[in-house]
Amino acid sequence: MSENINLAEKLALFSEHWSPRTVTHFNGHDIMVVKVQGEFVWHKHDETDDFFLVLKGRLTIHLRDRDVVLGPGELFVVPRGLEHQPFAEEETHLLLIEPTGTPNTGDTATAASQQII
Amino acid sequence: MSENINLAEKLALFSEHWSPRTVTHFNGHDIMVVKVQGEFVWHKHDETDDFFLVLKGRLTIHLRDRDVVLGPGELFVVPRGLEHQPFAEEETHLLLIEPTGTPNTGDTATAASQQII
Repeated sequence: MSENINLAEKLALFSEHWSPRTVTHFNGHDIMVVKVQGEFVWHKHDETDDFFLVLKGRLTIHLRDRDVVLGPGELFVVPRGLEHQPFAEEETHLLLIEPTGTPNTGDTATAASQQII
Repeated sequence: MSENINLAEKLALFSEHWSPRTVTHFNGHDIMVVKVQGEFVWHKHDETDDFFLVLKGRLTIHLRDRDVVLGPGELFVVPRGLEHQPFAEEETHLLLIEPTGTPNTGDTATAASQQII
């Protein structure tokens, strides 16, 4: 079995949007890939920073007072407690990192599956 | 000031090998970029997993019983306590994540600068 984790291969395994899949674990965090398109809900995580790295496409992270726009090879960390709303006009592929068990929206049962794909 | 962190732009700011630069922080970790070529020393980190994502080039992570080979868009997490030796024949660019203050080699004063580039 190959141990290298190819992110494009992992992303080819599913098509749903806003449904992160865990590819490995790191220091109590899930390393995840996700496909997104359209806008997610406004939310915040009081207990964790939120890591976004764009692999393909373009992601706008709306903050209450400004936008952060990310292209491929660009990342941004939303500080804990800061409200944000991700938006992607075209389908966009991301690498996400969150503590294992973190709900997507910060306040509902939307944690990613713990199963590694 | 642009808040998106462009990894290629950060990597263009320096040329030294095996000298990670911190680009931002995440949950008590440094998010770092590094240029590597040749082989690093065998080492392990007893207190932390070791995250490697190849951005450009090709990285071989020698483990005592096997090799893990990574190309662009591929990642591997070396579990804590596992001896490893990174090697790159050509200059290779990586995204690394380690707890803030972690020494590169696990046992000497080789922690990356905390200053964000």
